[in-house]
Amino acid sequence: MTKAYIHGYNPRENIRLQDQATTLVDLLHSDTTYPEGSRVLEAGCGVGAQTVTLAKNSPGASILSVDISENSVAQAEQKVRAAGLINVRFQQGDIYQLPFAPQSFDHIFVCFVLEHLKEPNAALRKLKSYLRPGGTITVIEGDHGSAYFHPDSDAAHAAIHCQVELQFRAGGNALIGRSLYPLLVTAGYSDIWVSPRMVYVDSSKPELVDGFTKKTFTAMIEGVRQSAIEKGIIDPAMFDKGIEDLYRTTEPDGIFCYTFFKALGKA
Amino acid sequence: MTKAYIHGYNPRENIRLQDQATTLVDLLHSDTTYPEGSRVLEAGCGVGAQTVTLAKNSPGASILSVDISENSVAQAEQKVRAAGLINVRFQQGDIYQLPFAPQSFDHIFVCFVLEHLKEPNAALRKLKSYLRPGGTITVIEGDHGSAYFHPDSDAAHAAIHCQVELQFRAGGNALIGRSLYPLLVTAGYSDIWVSPRMVYVDSSKPELVDGFTKKTFTAMIEGVRQSAIEKGIIDPAMFDKGIEDLYRTTEPDGIFCYTFFKALGKA
Repeated sequence: MTKAYIHGYNPRENIRLQDQATTLVDLLHSDTTYPEGSRVLEAGCGVGAQTVTLAKNSPGASILSVDISENSVAQAEQKVRAAGLINVRFQQGDIYQLPFAPQSFDHIFVCFVLEHLKEPNAALRKLKSYLRPGGTITVIEGDHGSAYFHPDSDAAHAAIHCQVELQFRAGGNALIGRSLYPLLVTAGYSDIWVSPRMVYVDSSKPELVDGFTKKTFTAMIEGVRQSAIEKGIIDPAMFDKGIEDLYRTTEPDGIFCYTFFKALGKA
Repeated sequence: MTKAYIHGYNPRENIRLQDQATTLVDLLHSDTTYPEGSRVLEAGCGVGAQTVTLAKNSPGASILSVDISENSVAQAEQKVRAAGLINVRFQQGDIYQLPFAPQSFDHIFVCFVLEHLKEPNAALRKLKSYLRPGGTITVIEGDHGSAYFHPDSDAAHAAIHCQVELQFRAGGNALIGRSLYPLLVTAGYSDIWVSPRMVYVDSSKPELVDGFTKKTFTAMIEGVRQSAIEKGIIDPAMFDKGIEDLYRTTEPDGIFCYTFFKALGKA
């Protein structure tokens, strides 16, 4: 699991994840609020990039955030404490075998986690067992196949494909966003509703040009350069041209599009 | 121009265009309403697939719909009359050289037209000259590069690429949707706002599975089979597999995504 998390655990990655959450926070999270007193499980909190938002948006909820990485859990806790939030507890745990009694939670929140799992369906089934009848699961995932841009560029698509390919080889799925509906159906959830959240970036939105296209998406792709080249997925010249072309989309006449998928299901 | 319109002018195409407008009408058009007494030019009305909606949504506006094809104009007029609408006049005309005085219109509406033009920028500049200062242009275009689906399929992408390639060879651009912002900037419009309209289809939306994925998008791609094969863009087996895979996305676990772009600019 830990090794399969291809984004890595370095500080720049943490900044990227945090930037991502800050820039996209309204788009992805503003409609997730849990009632006073509800018991919420955040499964796969990572370094807490989403936890602060989750906790702020539901101050009355009692949140338990878990992650397989002890180190990430510690960073997440530090981040949440620094934000002065007191409604989150933390615990290390494996999403496939969490130590909870059936129906221990009212709601479960899963963000940017399924994309890294070898068996997302097994994880979703397990999570369902921890929900009370009628409890909800909220899942948010990206989909790198949803990225397109102007000017269009084969090299840029090839560079993005490196990330997709590496994630597949690590047992994950960087195209999982589009599949949330059938995944939740197969895992036994009902009343499933999927809401795509498209990030459309043109130069009238400088904060997204910088915060999303450059510092979130392109930085993430740049991060796999060495692995992709070492594994022979791409040659250095093509990769570098791809990154150059991704930055080209941030010029005044450039456009960048990417879609996240947010799904809601009932236990 | 007429020959370059690769969707053709056959009855099935007309049904498809009409289905498209009916299925997507809310998504694309519900926020386009023109005030009482305003002079509106619909540039490139085709067979009137959008004209009926346009006229219904702005009953007090005085709409002039033009198209380069005399035959299409006649069909559009018939359709609008059959709907009992009296606020639309019709006229044959070439979008590059319409016989209007400067500043003759308050608003211009252009839908699924720029994708077929060799010089969309020249057309947009010309159209701007017919707008009064502060008048608006509304442009709606698709983008075939925005199509992705589950299960993913290289053959399906190759079949879609046939349409893109044929449209490029005819002087058009089936990926124009994403470029509306820079197009309007270059043509001299101000206060430009682009709103992507994503069609997300899962099996909880049977009317979109049937009306959009099958009868609009896949039917359109199917329509280029002969041209694509004759021009050597694809072999028949690959094309047919692509179409089969597009239909596969309409099964209960399938997903289909496509994005239209709606842009607004001021003269």
